Amino acid sequence: MTTGLSLNFASDNVEGASPGVMEALLRANAGPAPAYGTDAWTKRVEARFAELFEHEVAVFPVATGTAANALALAAAVSPWGSCLCHVESHVADDECGAPEFFSHGAKLIGLAGTGCKLDAAEVERVLDRLPDHVKQMPAQAVSLSQATECGLVYGQDEIAAIGALCRSRGLALHMDGARFANALVRLGASPAEMTWKAGIDILSFGATKNGCLAAEAVIVFSPRLAESLAYRRKRGGHTFSKSRFLAAQLEGYLDADAWLAHARHANAMAARLSGGLARLPGARLAWPTESNAVFAILPRAIDRAIAAAGALYHPWSPRFLPEGIRVGEDETLVRFVTSFATRPEAVDLLLATAASEKW
Amino acid sequence: MTTGLSLNFASDNVEGASPGVMEALLRANAGPAPAYGTDAWTKRVEARFAELFEHEVAVFPVATGTAANALALAAAVSPWGSCLCHVESHVADDECGAPEFFSHGAKLIGLAGTGCKLDAAEVERVLDRLPDHVKQMPAQAVSLSQATECGLVYGQDEIAAIGALCRSRGLALHMDGARFANALVRLGASPAEMTWKAGIDILSFGATKNGCLAAEAVIVFSPRLAESLAYRRKRGGHTFSKSRFLAAQLEGYLDADAWLAHARHANAMAARLSGGLARLPGARLAWPTESNAVFAILPRAIDRAIAAAGALYHPWSPRFLPEGIRVGEDETLVRFVTSFATRPEAVDLLLATAASEKW
Amino acid sequence: MTTGLSLNFASDNVEGASPGVMEALLRANAGPAPAYGTDAWTKRVEARFAELFEHEVAVFPVATGTAANALALAAAVSPWGSCLCHVESHVADDECGAPEFFSHGAKLIGLAGTGCKLDAAEVERVLDRLPDHVKQMPAQAVSLSQATECGLVYGQDEIAAIGALCRSRGLALHMDGARFANALVRLGASPAEMTWKAGIDILSFGATKNGCLAAEAVIVFSPRLAESLAYRRKRGGHTFSKSRFLAAQLEGYLDADAWLAHARHANAMAARLSGGLARLPGARLAWPTESNAVFAILPRAIDRAIAAAGALYHPWSPRFLPEGIRVGEDETLVRFVTSFATRPEAVDLLLATAASEKW
Amino acid sequence: MTTGLSLNFASDNVEGASPGVMEALLRANAGPAPAYGTDAWTKRVEARFAELFEHEVAVFPVATGTAANALALAAAVSPWGSCLCHVESHVADDECGAPEFFSHGAKLIGLAGTGCKLDAAEVERVLDRLPDHVKQMPAQAVSLSQATECGLVYGQDEIAAIGALCRSRGLALHMDGARFANALVRLGASPAEMTWKAGIDILSFGATKNGCLAAEAVIVFSPRLAESLAYRRKRGGHTFSKSRFLAAQLEGYLDADAWLAHARHANAMAARLSGGLARLPGARLAWPTESNAVFAILPRAIDRAIAAAGALYHPWSPRFLPEGIRVGEDETLVRFVTSFATRPEAVDLLLATAASEKW
Repeated sequence: MTTGLSLNFASDNVEGASPGVMEALLRANAGPAPAYGTDAWTKRVEARFAELFEHEVAVFPVATGTAANALALAAAVSPWGSCLCHVESHVADDECGAPEFFSHGAKLIGLAGTGCKLDAAEVERVLDRLPDHVKQMPAQAVSLSQATECGLVYGQDEIAAIGALCRSRGLALHMDGARFANALVRLGASPAEMTWKAGIDILSFGATKNGCLAAEAVIVFSPRLAESLAYRRKRGGHTFSKSRFLAAQLEGYLDADAWLAHARHANAMAARLSGGLARLPGARLAWPTESNAVFAILPRAIDRAIAAAGALYHPWSPRFLPEGIRVGEDETLVRFVTSFATRPEAVDLLLATAASEKW
Repeated sequence: MTTGLSLNFASDNVEGASPGVMEALLRANAGPAPAYGTDAWTKRVEARFAELFEHEVAVFPVATGTAANALALAAAVSPWGSCLCHVESHVADDECGAPEFFSHGAKLIGLAGTGCKLDAAEVERVLDRLPDHVKQMPAQAVSLSQATECGLVYGQDEIAAIGALCRSRGLALHMDGARFANALVRLGASPAEMTWKAGIDILSFGATKNGCLAAEAVIVFSPRLAESLAYRRKRGGHTFSKSRFLAAQLEGYLDADAWLAHARHANAMAARLSGGLARLPGARLAWPTESNAVFAILPRAIDRAIAAAGALYHPWSPRFLPEGIRVGEDETLVRFVTSFATRPEAVDLLLATAASEKW
Repeated sequence: MTTGLSLNFASDNVEGASPGVMEALLRANAGPAPAYGTDAWTKRVEARFAELFEHEVAVFPVATGTAANALALAAAVSPWGSCLCHVESHVADDECGAPEFFSHGAKLIGLAGTGCKLDAAEVERVLDRLPDHVKQMPAQAVSLSQATECGLVYGQDEIAAIGALCRSRGLALHMDGARFANALVRLGASPAEMTWKAGIDILSFGATKNGCLAAEAVIVFSPRLAESLAYRRKRGGHTFSKSRFLAAQLEGYLDADAWLAHARHANAMAARLSGGLARLPGARLAWPTESNAVFAILPRAIDRAIAAAGALYHPWSPRFLPEGIRVGEDETLVRFVTSFATRPEAVDLLLATAASEKW
Repeated sequence: MTTGLSLNFASDNVEGASPGVMEALLRANAGPAPAYGTDAWTKRVEARFAELFEHEVAVFPVATGTAANALALAAAVSPWGSCLCHVESHVADDECGAPEFFSHGAKLIGLAGTGCKLDAAEVERVLDRLPDHVKQMPAQAVSLSQATECGLVYGQDEIAAIGALCRSRGLALHMDGARFANALVRLGASPAEMTWKAGIDILSFGATKNGCLAAEAVIVFSPRLAESLAYRRKRGGHTFSKSRFLAAQLEGYLDADAWLAHARHANAMAARLSGGLARLPGARLAWPTESNAVFAILPRAIDRAIAAAGALYHPWSPRFLPEGIRVGEDETLVRFVTSFATRPEAVDLLLATAASEKW
């Protein structure tokens, strides 16, 4: 490898920040500013989100997706309540119990579903099965990931079906939007259409993976869910004193639609990789590539070859493969993630390396 | 006011980041890096802290002082335990119950003490009074702030006296070092002397107020206190995916002893302000100026005059004034904080404004 | 000591259950009954409490006073809220942090006050001093003990003054009625007058100390505070399967006003003891005897003599003695508690023993 | 129905207390006794349990099974840890999140398994699949119910297989023994053999369902798990002041092996019912009857007939039926529970009613 090209497809969090975000950060570093969210950057970004979502919103910037998700779920579920989500969702499986911690012990009820996607009918079936008795924790929310942990994107109708169910049962609907932009550009929907118009009450708006250093925001569409969040954020240690630096990142991120351009690029890189891998003899896709992650079932020989060439990526759980797809003995299921910073040459180099393998 | 000078003495968190920290951040933003603390910056800064403290340490970078304090106390105190601290300490009074949240309900027992300083004899007296019964939450830790919330700096002997007491009673000793550097340069001690050599088991190492954007670290000297912290930090939402950006700030902060230079400057600015105020007719200091905050009892006319000139600062609680000092009816007790970015001209302008007041 | 008389004045929880309560228990033990609070005993006792308090109430029987207090406070205070109470109140000082546990980290702010009594003016002063900022835990409730831990009884006007303050500030008012009956008969008030008519929103109705084996009840006057309690009680492990046995105790306790007769007897025994002690040379009362506990400052020689005779009682904290009363070097402050089962002969024997001491 | 016979098979918690337990309670109600577990009854029962289990034990009497389970799991699992159990186990499904509450947010990972039984191989498979990363809550305990919620009884070898696995992975093993006696007499094992000799570290010893009013005990075999329990119990509100009344129930329960006789009777009644139902045309057992619960798949006509006759029992979840058994459209799966108080005439009457149905 003398190309200097990074073959790091381990995650979209391995990249740094986008130039626009860094510049916004530098610009914000001038002179004194009030602390704890009373600064001008924060106020501007709050207004920007209201405009973006065409809705009054309460905005709570934080530095990590885990903080955003845990705060959002704690606002939606009481300590003795439960939240339905996919059993392999990030909130249930990758946050070391942060939702349980912030909610003081609420239960995440993990549902099955191909590609980590929830299905309204399955959600309804599980809700119907829950006894209405003080011995059982009452369902109070549903959480879905857009895009899902397997890179799938809910259609507006799919979200709306779950949204309508939640409304009819009095449940709050949370969206984990760690890859909100990637899903949005895929759908071609507006932020409003993909959220509150489809029944989303509270959103974890992700920005770190798509270009920030460390900036996310809890966006609240249902006012009652916002009431406690200022206190919850503060006692969670997530209220920055120099709050302008969180807001400035988000400003730089949203500015001139940079976030959408980033997401389009990342998705395009995933499509390029996905298309190439699918053409390799013996390889196929585990789930369709709908955002910026590619899940492929590869012959072990290819897996070994690209790993030997220095490519970084992760093995993945085959638990929720589509009906009829299985990973063979000589195969392995892996995930590649692209980002705003992925270079097409890197994708092509990875594909060339894979293609050169004689197996 | 046509000078363009900032008279913002509201806090040391109103300033942005130091040039060195910003440059370190920019340098870190190059190419991919592993996430969640496995990056090279984090590893380097861990080694740097071990060197700095002349001791094996576990290092947990986080973004806020509240997170650092709450994690440290949760590591030191069980949910049914108690921690002795000053009743007006930051952990007890300014973090919206973050220590209670992270520790799952431990109790902070607030002690009195001039200038927010704990006295070993008073700590012992309170410990002796606590019944040893399952009805009472056993004392498991003491927390002190260095410098204190009133700007006072513990001498090494004072820390060591509390440290010896803690050792003899089996308690952990925590230092809230939100202004660690300011205290350190005042004492002229080494980091080791001011911490583990005096009995500190776990430290909240502050860097945000003295030049970072948002970076602190829990530094653990007693290995048993470190065991749970990786999990606690993650479920608290404080484990950054792009962890290099926390570490890079700390690197830039420590590099070439910039942090000590910053603290010396801030302290010098405080001394300049303090000296000037003390010379004003009718004004006097509430507590001696030992770090980067000045607490003054001002005639209300001066208070009004400097406020009218645009100066920003806060009124303060007179509850723990030194014996014999009281705030008169026509006086007000206020706090001014200086920082690495405070300009001497600003101090002088403030003093001149105050001096010009006819009262 | 050949009299067979018990000189156990250690607490009112050292006695067993009253005959009426035991009989009710035996009567309830006949045949099957539905579980988890759906039994007839529970329904009857709910109706009985509504009648007793002349108000719609939600009733949650539990087995311990700590459970009742912790559940009540958790219903009234959010995890980031605070509750004002006396610093030596049972909730703050004798329950190993149960209120913090059940409320998920709320803060108890301990106030001073003679004889563990809260004063409306002091409560107001502390409320006025609390900053309205996300850094501080907002006050959401006040808790008072009737009778207090020093045996004092709030007058209706005193409760009403605190009640009016709470109403005007939007705080809930909780009464720890571990010795509710003793206070009630002292006041000569109705249960309604001593509670909701004076502004009490939620009550821990004590019965164990005054004749039950283990039975208390959270009585809720303000419907919004009752909403979560069925779930909180269940997950706290305080929902009995054989719930009739809690309810039956309460029925037996209330039946034919046995509880009031018990309390009158206990108070009369305390008055008898109190009067006798006050007449002893060198002895005096610490606080007036208003319920079933006597707090006396005794010459050490008397203390030694009665202890040597086998009397059981506890030393007490002199921290909140009335203005002008101090415990001398040769004196000790002690507490004697009487109960429904205290025999006048035992009181007289204690007094005779004390009187016989030459000192 | 003029027989006066109770056809209440809803649960073993619908019965009152056994005569022996009531007598012990009455005997204990004589004179004063020290409070909070320092009484003679508690000390005797602690010694009795040590003898019974042939092992040093720490004993924590409480009043409910939920309290016992939640305390035991909280002692075994840290707030960020996880505990493997059956997905339909009582701890996971019937305690409104009490284990999550007492453990401050630990996760219960629900496994599948016929008849609510855990299989060592499946436990191992799930453990092997858990990533070892700070993002995932580390497994720290396994909990099994003996007998299970479907009435099955683990063989000693089955427990020992899970025990050995736990030992090798450093996990604690908890037994929910709500129906400990019923399982014990079925196995014909000693208490030691069914617990610590098979690898159990901590036990919820149930007594309420088998004859007490409200008495269970956490029995701890592994000393390190006992360290925190006195504090946890107190702050959970489960430390009785008149503690003798919990201990006395347990004494009466264990006295003269009454508990074993009760369990044998209950199991015999279940066998009688089970045998009769299995002989009914169209009816069959869902799981074999191994303790005091009978799970039968009945023709709906029989279900209707016995319900119409006043029999009380519950429908049950068919989720973990044995391979090959399904509930047909015209069938229903129901549970009948027998107890120490079940009369053979009642069983026979139920059977006769069922048999008389023409369908």
